[in-house]
Amino acid sequence: MPSPRQLKLGAFMRPVSIHTGAWRYPQAWRDANFNLTRLKYLAERLEQGRFDAFFMADHLAVLNMPIDALQRSHTVTSFEPFTLLSALSQHTTHLGLVATASTTFEEPFHIARRFASLDHLSGGRAGWNIVTTSNPDAARNFGLEDHVEHAERYRRAREFYDVVTGLWDSWADDAFVRDAGSGQFFDPARLHVLDHKGPHFSVRGPLHIARPVQGWPVIVQAGASEAGRQLAAETAEVVFAAHGTLEEGRRFYADVKGRMRAIGRDPNHLKILPGAFVVVAGTLAEARAIRARLDSLVHYESAIASLSISLGVDASQFDPDGPLPRDLPDTNASKSARERAIALAEREGLTVRQLAQRLGGFSGLSFVGTPQTIADEMQQWLEQEGSDGFNIMFPWLPGGLDAFVDTLVPELQGRGLLRREYEGTTLRENLGLPRPGNRFFR
Amino acid sequence: MPSPRQLKLGAFMRPVSIHTGAWRYPQAWRDANFNLTRLKYLAERLEQGRFDAFFMADHLAVLNMPIDALQRSHTVTSFEPFTLLSALSQHTTHLGLVATASTTFEEPFHIARRFASLDHLSGGRAGWNIVTTSNPDAARNFGLEDHVEHAERYRRAREFYDVVTGLWDSWADDAFVRDAGSGQFFDPARLHVLDHKGPHFSVRGPLHIARPVQGWPVIVQAGASEAGRQLAAETAEVVFAAHGTLEEGRRFYADVKGRMRAIGRDPNHLKILPGAFVVVAGTLAEARAIRARLDSLVHYESAIASLSISLGVDASQFDPDGPLPRDLPDTNASKSARERAIALAEREGLTVRQLAQRLGGFSGLSFVGTPQTIADEMQQWLEQEGSDGFNIMFPWLPGGLDAFVDTLVPELQGRGLLRREYEGTTLRENLGLPRPGNRFFR
Repeated sequence: MPSPRQLKLGAFMRPVSIHTGAWRYPQAWRDANFNLTRLKYLAERLEQGRFDAFFMADHLAVLNMPIDALQRSHTVTSFEPFTLLSALSQHTTHLGLVATASTTFEEPFHIARRFASLDHLSGGRAGWNIVTTSNPDAARNFGLEDHVEHAERYRRAREFYDVVTGLWDSWADDAFVRDAGSGQFFDPARLHVLDHKGPHFSVRGPLHIARPVQGWPVIVQAGASEAGRQLAAETAEVVFAAHGTLEEGRRFYADVKGRMRAIGRDPNHLKILPGAFVVVAGTLAEARAIRARLDSLVHYESAIASLSISLGVDASQFDPDGPLPRDLPDTNASKSARERAIALAEREGLTVRQLAQRLGGFSGLSFVGTPQTIADEMQQWLEQEGSDGFNIMFPWLPGGLDAFVDTLVPELQGRGLLRREYEGTTLRENLGLPRPGNRFFR
Repeated sequence: MPSPRQLKLGAFMRPVSIHTGAWRYPQAWRDANFNLTRLKYLAERLEQGRFDAFFMADHLAVLNMPIDALQRSHTVTSFEPFTLLSALSQHTTHLGLVATASTTFEEPFHIARRFASLDHLSGGRAGWNIVTTSNPDAARNFGLEDHVEHAERYRRAREFYDVVTGLWDSWADDAFVRDAGSGQFFDPARLHVLDHKGPHFSVRGPLHIARPVQGWPVIVQAGASEAGRQLAAETAEVVFAAHGTLEEGRRFYADVKGRMRAIGRDPNHLKILPGAFVVVAGTLAEARAIRARLDSLVHYESAIASLSISLGVDASQFDPDGPLPRDLPDTNASKSARERAIALAEREGLTVRQLAQRLGGFSGLSFVGTPQTIADEMQQWLEQEGSDGFNIMFPWLPGGLDAFVDTLVPELQGRGLLRREYEGTTLRENLGLPRPGNRFFR
């Protein structure tokens, strides 16, 4: 019996892989940060696997690790999201293209325009992963000595979103008449000048590009804090969540969809996709061996540095073989990353060293097994309302992605849990999201 | 006898055409602002014609014309340069991709990163047209009520350039060792942290993308003012010039190349390409008829509004059939545009109406004739050191470009004035420009 609901699948990509040991894995593509040919292959395979979207991870600085750890990280460089996804749009026809863009270090006029342009270039496949950027080193690349405080970042993000969506609505869909005979290119009655004036931004508009194919590109968010959940319930269409367990996932799902109902939004108009690290192989033992091999390639120095970033304190001062101290000092670090680290250590009773090694590789939700066991787990999440699908992280590239598409995708399709063909051509159509009306025009 | 020098050719593109009447021309593509298929065709044809670069015109606002004029303009919308050129990079293999980016309304960290990414994606074909943005309406899209004053824009531009090029040099070309055995991804001794602190910018760095394929993308500028010429002599590798006559071109050429010699730069390391509007047809009469038809499609209301922008004053207050008044009030408008308009009116003895109609269509250097007469003129400019080539504007698209590639390109190639095959794969190689050394590493 096919399931009444189907999984939505994003692929959360860094050019090499999310797992910090992945670039050292045998046969891994170590040069994908610089090599578009690699990315083309990966995007084409994701489309063959009927993924909803290529989801481009991003940050705005070289990560602030000690140099001894940093020199071991493949995440120091990557393509820039807008340019990379625009290029990949020309090698795909249905795959969504989600770019991460910061509301703290960008201008809303530029962001509105670039997403609109990507949406036109791709025939309606753009999505915007709204981030407020919690990496303190990013501030120093933009003339700020101190990082912007958490609550202030969210207030700015909300206004940023209002400006960007308002700019996208600058033109009615039928504004451009292009009547060569009369010489009228557009109908002035179908143009709206936003003239936004708020606490953070003054933006006149209009945007000098037509309304996006999708009306608005799909709005994606990831924040798990109180402010992040509320912003998501009000504005997001996809939430990239982070849960270690189905029980956590169900609580988050019920909370966010409840917040939507409370403000009158249809809960189906937001897809909750927890990040999931998927290692699939012919046998359970083989899958576990792949993960163990990967984790063994993570250096302890890098791992303890990553842990320090997540906690916002120098974790190398702690006893590596003792538990994580309680009552850590308050910091300006991302609350969601910090809370996740603390919860993981408590849930699994990890020492500082164990926690560092897990975080240094990949610490979140993981499905490690055969196509059958993983499909069972995914089905359980879907049926028990733990999620609407997943944002997949591959253990290494290209092999981890190839195994997913070649073995897990057919298993999911056979159970009716994943599309065999795309429902439409735009990202919205494939995600089952409505096209937003224009707030200024009918 | 083949000429010892060859023309370098850019194509100065707006999605429809530079000429404001072009979208109304019979058979013109009126929807190219929204239709990537059109742009793909144009880029592919430019590459067949062995052009050096697709040069993407840009502005950061809907032009500040009265709505009656504005509604007749096809320039109200276009794709955004980085996204468009990234997409076009996937349909071309040798054509340079020059994006316009503003030093007044952008952040140097973002600009450095996007150009580096475009350069990697395209295999070394990126160029940066540095503009300081003279459109006062742009300021209001970025939270500024008053436009930044001319000299201050140039001071900021110079520091912006220093930061961007410094960020491009963050990594030595051999920094990324990717030694899977030892776990070292890069050599820390081959990484430089810029840590720039200046009057306009504080930018720590490093850039989180490898040094561009070309070292630096090709630096393009257009300013004709004293400050613009000096900045060009110090930093530019291509100058997009604007001259009405060969005599003006020769003076500019001698001036800028002289400034280069004065500071010890090789004059061959900068290519001066005046913008040239080229209407080519089988007979002179036919070519003139095409231009007359085009100009007849420019509305007077639009024309007088454009003239007002160029002059920085409301030109509709002047007697349309009288000469342009002398002693116009000082404004914050682009000095080069204003001086060009005044010079054109004086040189050709134009009334305000005639000047508006010329400016409203295209007012600058024009070659209107047969392949033979136009090749004669271009050869004269090249041999008399009026320019190193041209930045071509087509009268309408696609026909004006098709005629250029199908008839004028073979004529130029037959005379040895234009390459038959590209010299290299990068924009620098094709322009004959050296790859910049890294200021921090040998």
